[in-house]
Amino acid sequence: MIGQDNRSLRIGVAGLGTVGQGLLRLIARRPDFVPGGGRVEVTAVSARRRGAVRSVDTSQMAWFDDPVALARCPDIDVFVELVGGSEGVARQAVTAALESGKAVVTANKALIAQHGAELAHFAESRGLALRFEAAVMGGVPAVKILREALVGDEIEAVAGILNGTSNYILTEMEASGLDFDRILAQAQTLGYAEADPAADIGGWDAGHKIAILAALAFGGAPEGSRVEVEGIESVELIDIRLAGALGFRIKLIAMARKGRDGVRVSVHPTLIPLDHPLARAAGALNALFIHGAEVGELFIQGPGAGAGPTAAAVAADIADVIANPKRPVFQSPAMSLGQGTGPRPAREREGVYIRLMVRDEPGVVAAISETLAEGGVSIDSFLQKRLEDVTSVPIVLTTHPAEAAAITGTLARLAALPCMTQSPRLMRLARI
Amino acid sequence: MIGQDNRSLRIGVAGLGTVGQGLLRLIARRPDFVPGGGRVEVTAVSARRRGAVRSVDTSQMAWFDDPVALARCPDIDVFVELVGGSEGVARQAVTAALESGKAVVTANKALIAQHGAELAHFAESRGLALRFEAAVMGGVPAVKILREALVGDEIEAVAGILNGTSNYILTEMEASGLDFDRILAQAQTLGYAEADPAADIGGWDAGHKIAILAALAFGGAPEGSRVEVEGIESVELIDIRLAGALGFRIKLIAMARKGRDGVRVSVHPTLIPLDHPLARAAGALNALFIHGAEVGELFIQGPGAGAGPTAAAVAADIADVIANPKRPVFQSPAMSLGQGTGPRPAREREGVYIRLMVRDEPGVVAAISETLAEGGVSIDSFLQKRLEDVTSVPIVLTTHPAEAAAITGTLARLAALPCMTQSPRLMRLARI
Repeated sequence: MIGQDNRSLRIGVAGLGTVGQGLLRLIARRPDFVPGGGRVEVTAVSARRRGAVRSVDTSQMAWFDDPVALARCPDIDVFVELVGGSEGVARQAVTAALESGKAVVTANKALIAQHGAELAHFAESRGLALRFEAAVMGGVPAVKILREALVGDEIEAVAGILNGTSNYILTEMEASGLDFDRILAQAQTLGYAEADPAADIGGWDAGHKIAILAALAFGGAPEGSRVEVEGIESVELIDIRLAGALGFRIKLIAMARKGRDGVRVSVHPTLIPLDHPLARAAGALNALFIHGAEVGELFIQGPGAGAGPTAAAVAADIADVIANPKRPVFQSPAMSLGQGTGPRPAREREGVYIRLMVRDEPGVVAAISETLAEGGVSIDSFLQKRLEDVTSVPIVLTTHPAEAAAITGTLARLAALPCMTQSPRLMRLARI
Repeated sequence: MIGQDNRSLRIGVAGLGTVGQGLLRLIARRPDFVPGGGRVEVTAVSARRRGAVRSVDTSQMAWFDDPVALARCPDIDVFVELVGGSEGVARQAVTAALESGKAVVTANKALIAQHGAELAHFAESRGLALRFEAAVMGGVPAVKILREALVGDEIEAVAGILNGTSNYILTEMEASGLDFDRILAQAQTLGYAEADPAADIGGWDAGHKIAILAALAFGGAPEGSRVEVEGIESVELIDIRLAGALGFRIKLIAMARKGRDGVRVSVHPTLIPLDHPLARAAGALNALFIHGAEVGELFIQGPGAGAGPTAAAVAADIADVIANPKRPVFQSPAMSLGQGTGPRPAREREGVYIRLMVRDEPGVVAAISETLAEGGVSIDSFLQKRLEDVTSVPIVLTTHPAEAAAITGTLARLAALPCMTQSPRLMRLARI
């Protein structure tokens, strides 16, 4: 086994951003972290700019300008890909590493979400390990738990908060009463949001992660591009406040649920009851509920990003590559992975939150409640609340679970009522 | 690899209680749960009474009255030990299975807490797997997380609720206002407490579990008999109520913390701030915080017992034995396990909760506060509250962290004050 003789285990690291530097520091501090393995040593690195100022000394490591050349380099045993992106150099480098017989550890959620099944097949056909714990939930071992610890269970749903940036923004909007744009700017200043925050706030980052978790939980190939995605850009302060008045908090929830006709994989701003653990996961935390037929409910929470947690996840994968090389990449061998999660299933019955902005005039509540009743949509809670800084009167309500078609039709009829001053706002209610 | 040809993986199960029957049902329903492995089949069983009524049909399985004979039987590949107990037949059977070349999966926390290092050494020297996920926290994969997912991290502390029976009793005492004996009797009727509840309520069950987690987290041999253990028998309703008034909830907390001079491993009723996730883990739930230098805080919560969750953990171990047979039993190979957690370290500075029962007379508060000040113990919060059904007046206070010797000395001086009507009651304050 590599690393078990007196020779070091030689690691090549492509990408020296926060996580890459964290990994180099971790390995320098604890080169003996692989249980029963030899000494781990980073022997070669690659990054965009050789001269950049970094927190770690790379002068004793071979330097490659090209990650693909590093991946092919015969002087490394394990290739660690921290470049990112589903295409281009990251994909080429991972493929090159596997072609040249190296185990691969990656933190690249987009790559695994889009090409995970193909790469798994390629790796397994060569008897090589491919690990990606750090791609989902940073320091929280969600991948290992679903791949290994729940193998005897039948998973019914996974649902959680998988994007720390969005969670930070929603938490701060509620705490400060400032709107989305202000808090986003603040988060960028503090380093909680990237200069280009589109993937985080648009829900695609969480979408890639839930695609990977869905594949692990339900035995399909990950299908990152088929996830139903809605981000937090359109979450307004008024909805955060009114949801709170009804006993809910708005969270960006990524969910994969087995239904009658397939697995629905989605990311949506969702109302969660205030006393639910997912409602309490504040700031940049990540949190996940796993529902299994045997285990019931399992909840895990921890840091979803950051140099330390993510580097520790990469290190655990490096140890796994040595201690546990033959385990399939996903839960089942790649050749038996199902054809993804199948056709996108119809929405099942679900409850929703609706906000209506109306003129304050007689008969409005009667008109709204009649429209809902005619549409077969039953009200669970109802709140009319004049807000100081809002000219129209908001009416918010939550419904009992109803068919998606009934909700859609009713919403259209509500929008057409003469008392409406804006289009209705719809959000999901948690079903977790 | 066993199970990878067309031959079934043959399992022998010793112990057909709730978990054993749950495992037989799980395997009957999903005989193909080992990824990339063959069909799993329970071919032989052993239990105390052959004729007992069970929820599963064992008529097609070989029957052994003696678990040791089952363990030696050449017609099984993996021996599953669900008998329990650190000595006697369970220990003999596990040893016999390893002697005869079989991998072992066990749910026996007492056995692993007392003899884990010796058994690990024995198994690893023979190249055999020994797995015990179900021994700690039932369906929550705490063992796998500490053994595998945090291998690159340096753990500073683990702390949690590891005994569902105690947690159920404390939760119900608070909810109902009924005292310990009444709730215990109720729990026994409902099946949440065993007929002999001593190990659960006395803290020893949690003690065995934290000994195992400490060994995994800190690289020592588990030392079940050296854990500092205090159970919940002496938790009174009055303390639950007064702790609540101060903003705390009393939980039975098992903790292992690295200090200046070693690892302290303990189980104590402990006051937890009401808004802490451990305070919110109600009923029979188990929950664990892991603090690591890299990962920061990781929190996991789920069912700590029950047929489904525990059987799923055993099944995951069976899959691990096939997919991952060479991984060390603990985090590090048995030959490199430290000499346990070392000498029991001195208590570090910690805050405490003190309840004093006093006569309602002038000068009492002054006498108490002077005694504390003289002892160098600083008060954090203080509450005097007359309770309807209590004749003396309770005074409760929490202190800032102080040396254990200062607390002990001060408590003795408080006890000697003439106004006291009972001995002071001391409890730990969370440091998590």
